[in-house]
Amino acid sequence: MGVIRIGPTIFAAFMDFSLQHTDPKSKARAGVVTTDHGQIETPIFMPVGTAGTVKAVHQREIKEDIAAEIILGNTYHLYLRPGLEVIQAAGGLHKFNGWDRPILTDSGGYQVYSLGDNRKITEKGVRFKSHIDGSMHDFTPERVMDIQRVIGADIIMAFDECTPYPCERKYAEDSMHMTHRWLKRCIDHFDQTEPVYDYSQTLFPIVQGSTYPDLRRQSAEFIAEQGREGNAIGGLSVGEPHEDMYAMTELVCDILPKDKPRYLMGVGTPENILECIALGVDMFDCVMPTRNARNGMLFTSEGIINIKNERWKSDFSPIDPEIGGYVSTFYTRAYLRHLIMSKEMLGAQICSVHNLTFYLWLVKQAREQIKAGTFASWKNQMVKKVTTRL
Amino acid sequence: MGVIRIGPTIFAAFMDFSLQHTDPKSKARAGVVTTDHGQIETPIFMPVGTAGTVKAVHQREIKEDIAAEIILGNTYHLYLRPGLEVIQAAGGLHKFNGWDRPILTDSGGYQVYSLGDNRKITEKGVRFKSHIDGSMHDFTPERVMDIQRVIGADIIMAFDECTPYPCERKYAEDSMHMTHRWLKRCIDHFDQTEPVYDYSQTLFPIVQGSTYPDLRRQSAEFIAEQGREGNAIGGLSVGEPHEDMYAMTELVCDILPKDKPRYLMGVGTPENILECIALGVDMFDCVMPTRNARNGMLFTSEGIINIKNERWKSDFSPIDPEIGGYVSTFYTRAYLRHLIMSKEMLGAQICSVHNLTFYLWLVKQAREQIKAGTFASWKNQMVKKVTTRL
Repeated sequence: MGVIRIGPTIFAAFMDFSLQHTDPKSKARAGVVTTDHGQIETPIFMPVGTAGTVKAVHQREIKEDIAAEIILGNTYHLYLRPGLEVIQAAGGLHKFNGWDRPILTDSGGYQVYSLGDNRKITEKGVRFKSHIDGSMHDFTPERVMDIQRVIGADIIMAFDECTPYPCERKYAEDSMHMTHRWLKRCIDHFDQTEPVYDYSQTLFPIVQGSTYPDLRRQSAEFIAEQGREGNAIGGLSVGEPHEDMYAMTELVCDILPKDKPRYLMGVGTPENILECIALGVDMFDCVMPTRNARNGMLFTSEGIINIKNERWKSDFSPIDPEIGGYVSTFYTRAYLRHLIMSKEMLGAQICSVHNLTFYLWLVKQAREQIKAGTFASWKNQMVKKVTTRL
Repeated sequence: MGVIRIGPTIFAAFMDFSLQHTDPKSKARAGVVTTDHGQIETPIFMPVGTAGTVKAVHQREIKEDIAAEIILGNTYHLYLRPGLEVIQAAGGLHKFNGWDRPILTDSGGYQVYSLGDNRKITEKGVRFKSHIDGSMHDFTPERVMDIQRVIGADIIMAFDECTPYPCERKYAEDSMHMTHRWLKRCIDHFDQTEPVYDYSQTLFPIVQGSTYPDLRRQSAEFIAEQGREGNAIGGLSVGEPHEDMYAMTELVCDILPKDKPRYLMGVGTPENILECIALGVDMFDCVMPTRNARNGMLFTSEGIINIKNERWKSDFSPIDPEIGGYVSTFYTRAYLRHLIMSKEMLGAQICSVHNLTFYLWLVKQAREQIKAGTFASWKNQMVKKVTTRL
């Protein structure tokens, strides 16, 4: 990390990305992202910690059992509760929740758009009504940079509009241009402000353009030109066919700079992740492993398990010994089924830790295969396994 | 533990209780209970694992963080779900839920009586309707012994009637006599049957008699005469004034044999536990530390915290560093408040682990004070602390 002085008292270090291996038979890459809160080996999956907590998972479990290297926080949720005053008083989100490795925050845009009638988008930004107490708030590109500065994320996301699927071409095009104008405002404001705490922060711009190849190309070129330390692909995994997701991802990855990490937002199933690693994506996040966990859906190295099925009632084998980790090797399928059927919290806890352990195991395996030059064939076998319903 | 042969293939070891110290200024005792699943240092608090799970707490946390030495299971819940077939196929509850230290099961009576119109008590036993699927079931003293044999508890409780408070004298007296007749049937059946698994089980009878001193005396004498390896006091902590609870407990403890452990069922607050240790009780269980935890009520070494209070909003000190343990020293009050206010599962998890850690810390402190001969004065100071509202 280079270090430069900005102003009289604050100094900022840059985030660094080192590309280590490229798979010979696909576009898969292995690299290392270095932040002031430590290194991230890519490809990586980032557990989602919406309100400063990865739901149902202790911080110790995220670190020691799941072996996550970076987690997400949601700006919208954290801004409303506990609020910036509390987070700043704590010394930032890392200090507040006790997670001392890297954190990435989304811009809050995605949550705000989901509010439907309770939000209004203009060129200036978005006015929305809190889902908690009905109070009115304004998110602008500048404000969202300030908020993420205070939250103290290592990686800050640009304020964009995530278009729905399907999306009329005219809307997608206008929205993309607004996202680009907002990006300029984000960059200007970010570059003119300093970190609130004593570590560096970096800003990732986001490619939009819905499922229109020419818009995606135009957006990717615009984003690439900004020369930031990492780049993201947004607006996918919102209901479009997988073929479209893969086509847009490949098109965009081919344009985004090779020497910067690429983050595909909100993706996805184990299969999606493997396919998109093959297309050159380095970073992923998704609520699926934790959300589906709470309904008893398990992702394992042998396939998908609905633990509520009668077939697991007397299966006293461990959940998934292959991937290691406390919950996956200690608890049996029969016991876990009992907990989920009985709506016991421990069931959701075990499934959440297990699914995240599996996701991190999966990207670590992918990394090892990329380093060994065997990723492409392994990926095809693994996709068959992870899509099997047991 | 003595070992004798019963029948051709099964052998049973006896549970042992060794009384080590008696406090000079109170009736408090320190001892060691030895079972085939390990030793229990008394006085002890037993976390309640209703359906084979201490709610919201991983088995690893119960063992390593909370340092519990024995947990409870509820016969009623386990019998209905997962059911005896699954538990027996697993090899008993220890194997099913992965807890390899001692387990005590209640008799299911308390839960069954709580069903109100959905149960009918006769001399034979209780017929009740499942709260899960409405199916009809019969619990008799004999059946309940068989069920607890299959669950595989180290300590099995007699099938009794727990009278409500207030309770007419006539009802209390008749009920006590029926509980005594049921006890004889429990003992006959228990002594004629063998453990299902390869470790010993022991049966504790239960003193009843509501808040009538003469009935309590009569019941305690009857229970003492049975000469079992441990004895329990039931029918308290059901709404009666604390003075009555203490008076009945003292009266009964004075009659129950000194060389056998005494278990006060369903008690209680930290204050109740300290006062009843002073009266000669060795074992306790209560849902309070976990149930209240889920609403954000914390028991600490300095007093009671309602974590929802505004005053904790920016309190970045640990929950209770005094008692040690991961959650109590790692998470801050402000973060925990945020989790509970946001209804995040992790909030209930942290509060549950913390409260149980505190309860186990409290009885361990009591034990140390008894061994040092300083229990009585320490207890009076501690009662003041634990009843303070912070």
